[in-house]
Amino acid sequence: MLRTHTCGELRIEHVNESVTLCGWVQRVRDKGGMLWVDLRDRYGITQLLFEEGSTAPELLSQARALGREFVIKATGNVVERFSKNDKIPTGDIEIRVGTLEVLNASEVPPFIIENDTDGGEDLRMKYRYLDLRRTEVREKLQLRSKLAIATRNYLANQDFIEVETPVLIKSTPEGARDFVVPSRMNQGEFYALPQSPQTFKQLLMVSGFDRYFQIVKCFRDEDLRADRQPEFTQIDCEMAFVTREDVLNLFEGMVRSLFKDIKEVDLPEFPRMTYQDAMRLYGSDKPDTRFDMKFVEFNEVAQNKGFNVFDQAELVVGICAKGCAEYTRKQLDALTDFVRRPQVGAKGLVYVKCNPDGSFKSSVDKFYTQDDLQSWADLAGAEKGDLLLVLSGKANEARKQLNELRLHLGDELGLRDKNDFSPLWVVDFPLLELDEETGKYHAMHHPFTSAKKEDIELLDQSPGEVRANAYDMVINGVEVGGGSIRIHDKPTQQLMFKHLGFSEEEAKAQFGFLMEAFEYGAPPHGGIAFGFDRLCALFGGSDSIRDYIAFPKNTSGRDVMIDSPSHVSDDQLEELGIKLR
Amino acid sequence: MLRTHTCGELRIEHVNESVTLCGWVQRVRDKGGMLWVDLRDRYGITQLLFEEGSTAPELLSQARALGREFVIKATGNVVERFSKNDKIPTGDIEIRVGTLEVLNASEVPPFIIENDTDGGEDLRMKYRYLDLRRTEVREKLQLRSKLAIATRNYLANQDFIEVETPVLIKSTPEGARDFVVPSRMNQGEFYALPQSPQTFKQLLMVSGFDRYFQIVKCFRDEDLRADRQPEFTQIDCEMAFVTREDVLNLFEGMVRSLFKDIKEVDLPEFPRMTYQDAMRLYGSDKPDTRFDMKFVEFNEVAQNKGFNVFDQAELVVGICAKGCAEYTRKQLDALTDFVRRPQVGAKGLVYVKCNPDGSFKSSVDKFYTQDDLQSWADLAGAEKGDLLLVLSGKANEARKQLNELRLHLGDELGLRDKNDFSPLWVVDFPLLELDEETGKYHAMHHPFTSAKKEDIELLDQSPGEVRANAYDMVINGVEVGGGSIRIHDKPTQQLMFKHLGFSEEEAKAQFGFLMEAFEYGAPPHGGIAFGFDRLCALFGGSDSIRDYIAFPKNTSGRDVMIDSPSHVSDDQLEELGIKLR
Repeated sequence: MLRTHTCGELRIEHVNESVTLCGWVQRVRDKGGMLWVDLRDRYGITQLLFEEGSTAPELLSQARALGREFVIKATGNVVERFSKNDKIPTGDIEIRVGTLEVLNASEVPPFIIENDTDGGEDLRMKYRYLDLRRTEVREKLQLRSKLAIATRNYLANQDFIEVETPVLIKSTPEGARDFVVPSRMNQGEFYALPQSPQTFKQLLMVSGFDRYFQIVKCFRDEDLRADRQPEFTQIDCEMAFVTREDVLNLFEGMVRSLFKDIKEVDLPEFPRMTYQDAMRLYGSDKPDTRFDMKFVEFNEVAQNKGFNVFDQAELVVGICAKGCAEYTRKQLDALTDFVRRPQVGAKGLVYVKCNPDGSFKSSVDKFYTQDDLQSWADLAGAEKGDLLLVLSGKANEARKQLNELRLHLGDELGLRDKNDFSPLWVVDFPLLELDEETGKYHAMHHPFTSAKKEDIELLDQSPGEVRANAYDMVINGVEVGGGSIRIHDKPTQQLMFKHLGFSEEEAKAQFGFLMEAFEYGAPPHGGIAFGFDRLCALFGGSDSIRDYIAFPKNTSGRDVMIDSPSHVSDDQLEELGIKLR
Repeated sequence: MLRTHTCGELRIEHVNESVTLCGWVQRVRDKGGMLWVDLRDRYGITQLLFEEGSTAPELLSQARALGREFVIKATGNVVERFSKNDKIPTGDIEIRVGTLEVLNASEVPPFIIENDTDGGEDLRMKYRYLDLRRTEVREKLQLRSKLAIATRNYLANQDFIEVETPVLIKSTPEGARDFVVPSRMNQGEFYALPQSPQTFKQLLMVSGFDRYFQIVKCFRDEDLRADRQPEFTQIDCEMAFVTREDVLNLFEGMVRSLFKDIKEVDLPEFPRMTYQDAMRLYGSDKPDTRFDMKFVEFNEVAQNKGFNVFDQAELVVGICAKGCAEYTRKQLDALTDFVRRPQVGAKGLVYVKCNPDGSFKSSVDKFYTQDDLQSWADLAGAEKGDLLLVLSGKANEARKQLNELRLHLGDELGLRDKNDFSPLWVVDFPLLELDEETGKYHAMHHPFTSAKKEDIELLDQSPGEVRANAYDMVINGVEVGGGSIRIHDKPTQQLMFKHLGFSEEEAKAQFGFLMEAFEYGAPPHGGIAFGFDRLCALFGGSDSIRDYIAFPKNTSGRDVMIDSPSHVSDDQLEELGIKLR
């Protein structure tokens, strides 16, 4: 190595040793007689000292010529500092430099390489390699690396085999859009990049691999919302001979172990909540259970009192905001504005203040007596000083809107602490989802998910009511992972495809290999996939997955650093048998 | 779990326990009064027992209806076997079955699911999920999984950070052909799949990541020779502030540790051999050093004796096959035929038998006296009973041909034992390679490889003589990994591109981001990439990497199991802005 030690390594016990350090110039402080250089590498910062009198004049002027982000190699003696810095582990010592070599100079970087940078998002993305130099950013990727290793070791210890499934696979029109890859050797034909290794992992179960996992890149050619990436990473897992409880327990164990190892957090046991309860109590299939504020349905007490809006609503539903009766008119107006935003879409918001004196003040006093409002408060368990916030409308819509309001209030009231973790399993998802536009059902999870045995007879008459053997792991309102017990026999898989509107030919052309595999002794099996980028963000206490991806793409799917995608030559296209339209 | 134990778990101490096993029916033996079923899973085989009299008649007929590869669940008592089987760990016991459930039936599989299968290659590839059920095949993939985990833990313990680099990157016309991916959101533009994460890992060094690794899929759209795959896996590594020796020592340590942990093999220290020596002594830059048989150059003793073929040759070069003087005419003819094969391309083969009586018998006795031949033998260190085999021609060609002959003889003489491991480093590769067709130089390794300092002045006058700071790890004649110390400053990188015939615009368009990065404090750095598929094959003692890939493609780049690549709809192409030619 060009160095004897890293910049994070030297302590008081190294005093008098001769050492060589390499790194980047973080800062130069020139006090005339003395000149200090903060030398930085991944491991820390060490102070270099140059002193007029004891330092040779040429060396001193060499040091004076250093600029920010120069890469240097410095040899010298470790000495005890006169004024120590207890903010950094190397703060007791400094290096009295004897020789200095500039390994590479640096232009002035386009933004400051510190946690508090002056660089905007676009600039930092263009110079991502400099952005990654910032300790805060690098540590996020180090966390990611640690999480991946810990995940692998946990699963390997549980007898899981990591198997790499192919990246060049086959396009299927089901689900999201595939990225495709023209085949030069099979002109006119295309590979597709996998949206998930779903069918391959199921085949591995048919192969008797028993326990499979893979940390694997997946691809989806979708229009990119704020926090979506065209390529993302999954922890993909599958097990044979399991019931739902086996899968839940094993992966609950994994996540608990990761939290313990990486964050020293002891997670509580994960409660199970049905999809139906999650929707009824939180208006979301990924409820943030760090705080309570469960939904209360007011139909019985609020309807038929002359308030038309409520009378005509399918659902009158609200939440109780503890201790918020003192909200001002302005604050209440802001909440009303919030629910009226087109992204939320409510028409209005009814409030009831449970005053400290036991009286009520509401926005619908015209229609409800104090006794009426008392019955609302009783239903909601509201006490003096609390605030009820009530929405109404079509049940699904009102719930969705109230979910947004609940999360917003949770933020406002500081109930969503990033260092609190509240996990749960949401189970019994519907098997099928009605597409309101086409009137057709499609698979809520994917077409390989099995139905609950007791519901399967409903498939013909009320397909929307059939519950699936599907589950999501939710932590702090984030869907961390999801999976299901799969179909493992051909007749059931055929039935499922039929209900999803596949013709027999379509089913065979796309998934014939899987259905054929089911005829040769397929074991019962199930699994789960975790969004690894999201898991990293959760561990890091961040909302954005982008921070946890070394070289992310922007919302147009571009890598602005390498300027990709880009044009390719006509020759190249000709070889591939394609041309531009 | 549907089972209480796996099929590899039960021992004599479990006798009298009630257990439930799940697995596949490997075999049914029906002896009338007794019926045995071998139940198989990934963990082993356990024998199930059904006995007339003690087994209920319905259960017995249920067992009689079982076919090969049926998936069943059997509950019963562990009993000591009457006649034990010491070939399997569960051979002391069997299960007296009380209840049996068929979890899934199976068609008769298209080939026998045993190590000795009757299935041909094509059939096994079409039903790869059944091929993977064979213990031998599954164990290869388990080895791969173990190797990956051990590699990651080794590198993580050495402070390497695993960073996922993007799969959707930018096409560069340099080197092998890229797979490209049309961008829907940026019509007319394409991503490319990476042939390696080379530039990204160098950027991570610029970012100060210090030590990076990744086990990563790479892609090359090349015509597939026997043992090439369009997608393959690399262990990709890079380090900052290193000299060549640092890289060699660290990765030698890694491979030694893997051999120790996975195979319990203590590798010797890896000798270093220059490229020049490797070519001169073995005719190959990846010499198989499990056996000696080094090349001997005979020009001095064999030329100017009237044998025209040798006199006109640039090089007369041979090997000494120990103890092979007794080779028959037929054997010698076979060797001559071997070197004359078009794949080898020699015109003929000269032999000299060093007879046990001290005399010589050669195929060129007409031109050489016994004394002449004695001097050949002396030069080659040949003793009585040895055989000299000599080729001639242009130096490069004769060496290549003799390399083939040497390896062939090594096989024939049993000198290439798969359980012997002979590692070495080949160093000092040429920087540039002359393309004889175009008369142009291209980078032997890649354009980011640095030249040896002392050679750089040769770059203008004799570019072919410049040695690179490049190295390959070779084990048993297999190039396991290769790397180099990189260029880390813009002027040198520009110089290199110029010598490779890039215009300034081309260099900028393709690698501008890297050269720009070099201006902001790039540290000296170097790295290596291991072919992971090949490393697995080496560990498994196999010549073919295909066995170590779960779902390989055939030589036309097809996955015959899922039938990919395939046609995609016109709508899909239209969305992507492309059409077929």
